[in-house]
Amino acid sequence: MLIILQAGSTTEEVEQVVAELAGVSVTGYPARSRGREVVCLTQHLNMELRTWLHAVCPQVERILDIKAPYKLASAEYRPEPSTVVVGQGNRQVRVGPGQFVVMAGPCTIESEEQLFQTAALVKQAGANILRGGAFKPRTSPYSFQGMGVEGLKLLQRAGHTYNLPTVTEVMESAYVDAVAEYADILQVGARNMQNFPLLREVGLAGKPVLLKRGPSATLEEWLMAAEYILSTGNEQVILCERGIKGFDPTTRNVLDLGGVVAVQEKTHLPVIVDPSHATGKRSLVTPLGLAAAAIGANGIMVECHPHPEQALCDGAQSILPEQLTELVKGVHSVTAAVRDIYEPEESSEVEVAA
Amino acid sequence: MLIILQAGSTTEEVEQVVAELAGVSVTGYPARSRGREVVCLTQHLNMELRTWLHAVCPQVERILDIKAPYKLASAEYRPEPSTVVVGQGNRQVRVGPGQFVVMAGPCTIESEEQLFQTAALVKQAGANILRGGAFKPRTSPYSFQGMGVEGLKLLQRAGHTYNLPTVTEVMESAYVDAVAEYADILQVGARNMQNFPLLREVGLAGKPVLLKRGPSATLEEWLMAAEYILSTGNEQVILCERGIKGFDPTTRNVLDLGGVVAVQEKTHLPVIVDPSHATGKRSLVTPLGLAAAAIGANGIMVECHPHPEQALCDGAQSILPEQLTELVKGVHSVTAAVRDIYEPEESSEVEVAA
Amino acid sequence: MLIILQAGSTTEEVEQVVAELAGVSVTGYPARSRGREVVCLTQHLNMELRTWLHAVCPQVERILDIKAPYKLASAEYRPEPSTVVVGQGNRQVRVGPGQFVVMAGPCTIESEEQLFQTAALVKQAGANILRGGAFKPRTSPYSFQGMGVEGLKLLQRAGHTYNLPTVTEVMESAYVDAVAEYADILQVGARNMQNFPLLREVGLAGKPVLLKRGPSATLEEWLMAAEYILSTGNEQVILCERGIKGFDPTTRNVLDLGGVVAVQEKTHLPVIVDPSHATGKRSLVTPLGLAAAAIGANGIMVECHPHPEQALCDGAQSILPEQLTELVKGVHSVTAAVRDIYEPEESSEVEVAA
Amino acid sequence: MLIILQAGSTTEEVEQVVAELAGVSVTGYPARSRGREVVCLTQHLNMELRTWLHAVCPQVERILDIKAPYKLASAEYRPEPSTVVVGQGNRQVRVGPGQFVVMAGPCTIESEEQLFQTAALVKQAGANILRGGAFKPRTSPYSFQGMGVEGLKLLQRAGHTYNLPTVTEVMESAYVDAVAEYADILQVGARNMQNFPLLREVGLAGKPVLLKRGPSATLEEWLMAAEYILSTGNEQVILCERGIKGFDPTTRNVLDLGGVVAVQEKTHLPVIVDPSHATGKRSLVTPLGLAAAAIGANGIMVECHPHPEQALCDGAQSILPEQLTELVKGVHSVTAAVRDIYEPEESSEVEVAA
Repeated sequence: MLIILQAGSTTEEVEQVVAELAGVSVTGYPARSRGREVVCLTQHLNMELRTWLHAVCPQVERILDIKAPYKLASAEYRPEPSTVVVGQGNRQVRVGPGQFVVMAGPCTIESEEQLFQTAALVKQAGANILRGGAFKPRTSPYSFQGMGVEGLKLLQRAGHTYNLPTVTEVMESAYVDAVAEYADILQVGARNMQNFPLLREVGLAGKPVLLKRGPSATLEEWLMAAEYILSTGNEQVILCERGIKGFDPTTRNVLDLGGVVAVQEKTHLPVIVDPSHATGKRSLVTPLGLAAAAIGANGIMVECHPHPEQALCDGAQSILPEQLTELVKGVHSVTAAVRDIYEPEESSEVEVAA
Repeated sequence: MLIILQAGSTTEEVEQVVAELAGVSVTGYPARSRGREVVCLTQHLNMELRTWLHAVCPQVERILDIKAPYKLASAEYRPEPSTVVVGQGNRQVRVGPGQFVVMAGPCTIESEEQLFQTAALVKQAGANILRGGAFKPRTSPYSFQGMGVEGLKLLQRAGHTYNLPTVTEVMESAYVDAVAEYADILQVGARNMQNFPLLREVGLAGKPVLLKRGPSATLEEWLMAAEYILSTGNEQVILCERGIKGFDPTTRNVLDLGGVVAVQEKTHLPVIVDPSHATGKRSLVTPLGLAAAAIGANGIMVECHPHPEQALCDGAQSILPEQLTELVKGVHSVTAAVRDIYEPEESSEVEVAA
Repeated sequence: MLIILQAGSTTEEVEQVVAELAGVSVTGYPARSRGREVVCLTQHLNMELRTWLHAVCPQVERILDIKAPYKLASAEYRPEPSTVVVGQGNRQVRVGPGQFVVMAGPCTIESEEQLFQTAALVKQAGANILRGGAFKPRTSPYSFQGMGVEGLKLLQRAGHTYNLPTVTEVMESAYVDAVAEYADILQVGARNMQNFPLLREVGLAGKPVLLKRGPSATLEEWLMAAEYILSTGNEQVILCERGIKGFDPTTRNVLDLGGVVAVQEKTHLPVIVDPSHATGKRSLVTPLGLAAAAIGANGIMVECHPHPEQALCDGAQSILPEQLTELVKGVHSVTAAVRDIYEPEESSEVEVAA
Repeated sequence: MLIILQAGSTTEEVEQVVAELAGVSVTGYPARSRGREVVCLTQHLNMELRTWLHAVCPQVERILDIKAPYKLASAEYRPEPSTVVVGQGNRQVRVGPGQFVVMAGPCTIESEEQLFQTAALVKQAGANILRGGAFKPRTSPYSFQGMGVEGLKLLQRAGHTYNLPTVTEVMESAYVDAVAEYADILQVGARNMQNFPLLREVGLAGKPVLLKRGPSATLEEWLMAAEYILSTGNEQVILCERGIKGFDPTTRNVLDLGGVVAVQEKTHLPVIVDPSHATGKRSLVTPLGLAAAAIGANGIMVECHPHPEQALCDGAQSILPEQLTELVKGVHSVTAAVRDIYEPEESSEVEVAA
């Protein structure tokens, strides 16, 4: 259940709702949604209890019966698809129905030259958002771990130079503020999908969050992770499928496009696809990027590099500049080809909680 | 390695090659390919041995160094994509580059009325090939097992009535001849992908074979299963991805579209996609069918039913007639949208071994 | 539901039950169990219908409400664990509670010398049943496919020479009679677990059947496969876990010992474990064989070879003679150590349907 | 490669080695091991380079050619199994060869009464280490998240009262110090196995760490995660297998005991098994706990609760007090039964870096 309090409710009024519920052995969890105080319950309130609650807590405005274990992420709560607004001014991009965004850039920021050269290509190819890793989650402690804050600063400058909003991964609470300062979207990586303290921290940062699906996460676990962010009052969440663990050594992971369509039925949040990490092979990125457009996803995120053979990380899955140009053109052709089938519904924009 | 004998070589000459190889501790397996006798080896022959073999067996025409464990299925053996010609006369359809075929029909043939009604819809929707199960591999012995030969006869009649070639599953050697008599394509189901005696039998039947990928088969295991068919001299093999086993209960299986692209790089055989069994959910079939077109697959196979709620089997994944019409239109729009990207190469047709 | 007819009921009486059920839109499937004619239903019969059925079909003795989709394999139908009696005379072995059997032998029968040498070692090591493959399901058509009927004859002779019952795989209906003639247990391999026509054929052969779990089969699918055999009236079924498909390349498969314990709660059939195929590595076979004893499985099946480095198939997972001796001793020590915990319940023996 | 510097080497000397390597385009990563400064490389140094390095950096004592991507965790580096010493004084327990430890306690610390009651049972049953969660990683934000530091204090008191060392999970860097203050072992949960900043932090805390395997982590990824901890100079790492993601809904996860044996061949670190999270079912815990003893693991970790039906978390997988007693007795019987087979090798103890 989801209990929505009237606009302007105070912390004390929220606590009163929680206390009254506790009195009938129901645990309520305070959260925020769309600028309102809400209380979430996993237990069910029958009609009698709802009437009683309205009576003892007049600040309760509505009580919604949401059956999914995730509440704020649920399509039951919000049937129409959400749009997340990224960046500001002439660097603003909308992620949601009616758009198909392309996030592109190097796996890892290696140098000013490499990043700016790539950013120019990304812009020229018609992509919308610049990606680049400054903090890299590497399987081995003996691999390049990223340029850190220095990389963040370069990313911000490149974004401003080429009028592109930016996205980069944050791996630990200690760096949430820094990443939020320099980047437009905070990415939570697949390995951190259930790093719950980090999810709360990025939620509280108040900026759009890109939440990658863990390699063995069910759709429900993924939406529950999103719920951690949403429950902080931050509704700017973009989901990103990047492949699940599989048994075939040919591809790095198995891109679960059926899961993308299925999750779109369960949530109002925009969903994009990362064909680079899903496959680990350059030649597979374009076909799967086009497939993302065909299924009605809201965008893709791909790795590209002017000289993949020299990349410090994931060169084998980075596409070439000319491939990016072709891919951007291709996804727009496919999007146009399937438009009649998906007939995007009206979308109300999400406003960042003030 | 693959040793190709001169046209018109006799069984005795093949046996001589095998015997000579045995003399140097190399095991050769006789097979047929493109009307020629061939001998396949998994061991390597160095230059010296090749020269020697040419000398002692003058009927050896060429010796190809194919590194993949599958030989006849390999893109090394035949770089250009193959086309499989299905059906005859005005019911002829080509499966391969430059086409995107749609195979559609009921999961199970239930009655003359149901089948003919569906076949009419399939034709009207613009689909190319009629599918329908007469022998059904059911998890439970207490489920409807299909109409058997009676169903095959209905399928043949429906195909002739609506000018559609037909495809149906064969589950055991005892019925290969019957299925080959009444249907245009013999389907080997996912559960039988490594039923090696059956693979040989359908190969020897000399008709096109649709080989589904097993739910936990690697790409290599899949191509090795195709090799069993090819090595009988039957090169009319169409591969079909239908979802691999996954951990998320939302979808029946995980459709591995990355695997489809990857397998296309390894083989010359056409590859189609079955989004119905992959997902088990009607609402996911259209998006994933469109995705199959976007990745450059050679077609799809979908289940449809005029009244899915009354279907004896798999009603939940059968699409409605109007959805089939929309899907056929959609895959052709997508195929057109991505044509420039895939630039289909020239294809030489496969001729059924006489 | 499971409808048990009185002893001595005729085919006509069974058909009458099925016809009466059809009259109320319920599909009944005739089967045999413990020498009785039975009718299985997946639909539920309420009290009223049960009373009515008893009235119209007096030959109905009992109607059991079995909720599992498998009926005859279910622990609901038969709470006490079954014992399968294998072989005859001084080659008789009981597989079930109170025993821990060790089936051992070469992956593939290669020659008389290799088989007899191994059989001698198997006997000497204290193992109970001799295994050996005559028909081999090989991933590649270019691998040794087994000695065939010649191998079956050698196996029978070796079994008689060393007083060991024998088990060997049958891959196709055409050879069921031959395998049933020469071997004591018919093995259905993992790849054929859902080869339903084959399941019926081995059932009808009337000899004990060893049913391996498919690499991506759920426990329910496995028991449903067993149900195909049981429904023919053959209750001599032994289940064998041999590893499920996993993502780690270190081991060939993932041995699912938790699945073994879980399946034992669902069925009365004996369950054994094959640590050789599960791992593909010799050094892992002994630890996992001991683990099978620790969880209360009914036995193990292992591959051994006097000279594994010369084996034509699966040499890397075959244990050495001295390891087999140690393993047999070890499993008996472990079985003794855990006896108090599992307190084997009384078992009524299964009689082969006459 | 692993470069070991002489005892007493300074940071400057380490930096000189790294600088010299950089001069020949090799990246060296400083780490600490067994009280020594070391430099790890993933690139190979040939003989010539090794000779040169010894010459230009006289403080280099030895250069080891370790081929595994993990260096300090590798059995190549340290062939004999390690022992981790946990707790102090009369609460000291050794985890390693020659012991089989049982860690037991409630999933979640709920109250003083519940914890002390359970601790008494744990002691009485003969278990060695007390577990209990104070910070709980919960899939849902609307589930009980643990008692936090209050719980840690209770755990410490219970450990001292019953002379048991303690283990508890730490989920974020901010609480590493608190957990290290109150508990004897810091547990890194499966969801955090690749939370690299956390791995470094727990390493630097200088206390024993229990590192759970992620649900889709390969053995190599698991050992690489251990390497992050080891490279901080903390060698007190215990690995814990707790089940990998599987497709069968009957069990929560698939306990990969073959993976445990395989990882023991690759590393010198002790490995224990958690049958509670692996299965999610009480009735499976004892059999799999016994299996852990049978394969030669170094211990188990199980959840128990005096009243599982009232547990706030994971009650279904918590065993009852009498089951714990039986399990402890059982694992020791099994360990004795297999002792001859595993013949524990000599172990040199790990000393905590001063």
